[in-house]
Amino acid sequence: MMKPVKVGLLGLGTVGTGVVRIVEGHQEDLSNQVGSSISIAQILVKDRTKSRNIPVDASKLTEDPWDIVRNPEIDVIVEVMGGITQTKEYILEALERGKHIVTANKDLMALHGPEILAKAREKGCDVLYEASVAGGIPIIRTLIEGFSSDRITKIMGIVNGTTNYILTKMTQEGAAYSDVLKEAQELGYAESDPTSDVEGLDAARKMTILSTLGFRANVSLDNVSTKGISNVTQEDIQYAKRLGYEVKLLGIAERQDDFISVSVQPTMIKQTHPIASVNGVFNAVYVHGEAVGETMFYGPGAGEMPTATSVVADIVAVVKNMKLGVNGRQAQLSYNVVKLKTDEQIASKFFLLLHVEDRAGVLAQIAQVFSDCDVSIESVMQPTTPHKSSTEIIIITHEASKAAMNNVLKAFEGLAAVRKIKSVYRVEG
Amino acid sequence: MMKPVKVGLLGLGTVGTGVVRIVEGHQEDLSNQVGSSISIAQILVKDRTKSRNIPVDASKLTEDPWDIVRNPEIDVIVEVMGGITQTKEYILEALERGKHIVTANKDLMALHGPEILAKAREKGCDVLYEASVAGGIPIIRTLIEGFSSDRITKIMGIVNGTTNYILTKMTQEGAAYSDVLKEAQELGYAESDPTSDVEGLDAARKMTILSTLGFRANVSLDNVSTKGISNVTQEDIQYAKRLGYEVKLLGIAERQDDFISVSVQPTMIKQTHPIASVNGVFNAVYVHGEAVGETMFYGPGAGEMPTATSVVADIVAVVKNMKLGVNGRQAQLSYNVVKLKTDEQIASKFFLLLHVEDRAGVLAQIAQVFSDCDVSIESVMQPTTPHKSSTEIIIITHEASKAAMNNVLKAFEGLAAVRKIKSVYRVEG
Repeated sequence: MMKPVKVGLLGLGTVGTGVVRIVEGHQEDLSNQVGSSISIAQILVKDRTKSRNIPVDASKLTEDPWDIVRNPEIDVIVEVMGGITQTKEYILEALERGKHIVTANKDLMALHGPEILAKAREKGCDVLYEASVAGGIPIIRTLIEGFSSDRITKIMGIVNGTTNYILTKMTQEGAAYSDVLKEAQELGYAESDPTSDVEGLDAARKMTILSTLGFRANVSLDNVSTKGISNVTQEDIQYAKRLGYEVKLLGIAERQDDFISVSVQPTMIKQTHPIASVNGVFNAVYVHGEAVGETMFYGPGAGEMPTATSVVADIVAVVKNMKLGVNGRQAQLSYNVVKLKTDEQIASKFFLLLHVEDRAGVLAQIAQVFSDCDVSIESVMQPTTPHKSSTEIIIITHEASKAAMNNVLKAFEGLAAVRKIKSVYRVEG
Repeated sequence: MMKPVKVGLLGLGTVGTGVVRIVEGHQEDLSNQVGSSISIAQILVKDRTKSRNIPVDASKLTEDPWDIVRNPEIDVIVEVMGGITQTKEYILEALERGKHIVTANKDLMALHGPEILAKAREKGCDVLYEASVAGGIPIIRTLIEGFSSDRITKIMGIVNGTTNYILTKMTQEGAAYSDVLKEAQELGYAESDPTSDVEGLDAARKMTILSTLGFRANVSLDNVSTKGISNVTQEDIQYAKRLGYEVKLLGIAERQDDFISVSVQPTMIKQTHPIASVNGVFNAVYVHGEAVGETMFYGPGAGEMPTATSVVADIVAVVKNMKLGVNGRQAQLSYNVVKLKTDEQIASKFFLLLHVEDRAGVLAQIAQVFSDCDVSIESVMQPTTPHKSSTEIIIITHEASKAAMNNVLKAFEGLAAVRKIKSVYRVEG
């Protein structure tokens, strides 16, 4: 038995509380695995006098993060407080002092991952961050280890539970976006300011992390083209259903030769695709490898215990590495250079919902635009309603480049027959 | 850069060919990851003169396994030849000589895993076997590392592609078992002697490996109660569908307190459960952890490239460990003692299809038997056909112990009203 490993916990919110629960509840199992006990020696809180859901020794609580970062007794810092600029300072200082880091902070890792990992290598320390993406799914170690011999060509993820909850409710209950959002806020599934979730920023940060690992290249948040779900209508969802698709907020990272593209957008995904049936707050990451083909990893995306489980699994990994004397040597290297695909190189099928003039010859004009722009049409639907002729046209294209599609949309602006481009979606599956 | 790592390959069938393809095709990526090149130095084949799908240097081929096992130049033995008794000899001898082992051999690991892993620990060697279960899914490292901080309570797997293909075809096309089996044999999805697949033995071996890892206890093949799919009828599948279930061959490992049960049997699983929609030759492993809740891992179960990917990921892990000097120290320990649940402790819902006498009062008699045996009924269905009254009764029970259910079945044997117990299924989800 080694001497007990001492953990300093930055933050005692939902996830922090879960970490305390697991570490204290599973002492025997944990020490059987790593050969030493793990103790939470110090905890950063905002208010020492506040009452807690779990019993914690008051003498362990501090309101000053530097108390923990500079405590020479602490071996591992577990960061579950969130925040970016100040939190980075604490973590860099802790690394400077030879402490290992476990963090659940996707914002920090998406924005400053390369800098933090470089400092960790320099100091021979571990920085593990399994809980930062898809809380309960061990996707980060899977990308690093499970796919080490393969060449990943595509990662497609439902990595934000709030938006998946909203889209699932809209699909299953026919409710409007704003009503479902309000309900989600009341239930605590969405924040009072939901922007980061619904506008896709949270998902974009997670895709930054996943694509950096999957493509072994430092993808930055700026590289991710991002669009949220706030304009998704019930009409879009119903038309998607009729055509055999579900609307999901998908993060999509693709690689072809040396070029990559990473995006987040509401996407129509074929109902038969395994990711289409991932509902509610669940997350899933679909990975396509050249050799392995299709795989998918499914589980809870957030929540006290799932996220805490991933954090503690990372603590176990750090302690095993301490025992083996190999900290700081297993991080994945980003040896590829990021070369972004141009809009000419990014290709997919597209769904368009157009509001058009109600007269003969309109479809011919529209078809001509597609043809002029070299985009071929897979199917056209003109839904009829009992009492009036339709003024809506739904088009699904064959695979076309984003650039060609942009040309189509631009041409429609100058075409009187097209009154409004109501929706444009990427189509997958 | 270290000196090149030399691999000896036992077997150049489907998977072995895939390993050669990946190692030779991904040299740059692999050496970027591990800091040394990996070369396949020697290959065991049955017939040196046979023509091959891939170009291999004839001087590397040998027909004598001992040539490779005893070759002092070889660092890592990759065993993809299959077989049990003799193969075990080669592997133990290779370990004795300090070579690390990567194997795809589920039969060997299910039957002799503990002995082989003990020898590996003694000699400071790695034995990795990711490819032995669910070829393309990194489930073994997920169970060891991803769930290290959690307590796994249930593992439910579709781990045999052949039977899942057969059941999927029966469900989707309404064809009979024997016809689909024949087609699967023609397509090469089933062997000419399909016993090991269709009678559940292959799945039982895989569940032995998964439950040993998940429960950290040496589960043996004898501990697995096994039943295959050869008696599944189209009638069963159709009734299941009508009631909202799919018939799948599921391996189910459960733990409650210190007691476990492991079984393989055709099971009716609710259509809304994520594992119900895993079709064709795909595999999936559903894992429930106390903290994490529900997760599922989905991917190809077999095939040249998926399985070879897992083998090469294991080679990469061995080489990383060599570089770190930590071989033989990361294997999962089985520190729990296997205590099997009794039939009184194993509980599930059940589906029964009974052929009964066509007269009044029969249902009352049957209900009395259930009541006498303390099994409560969730639903009863008596399908009617247009021209005659039904002589079939379908019953789904509430959760009941296997022992109580056996009492029901025994009581039916003495009941004239029950002409035949046509089917009994475990029900999940």
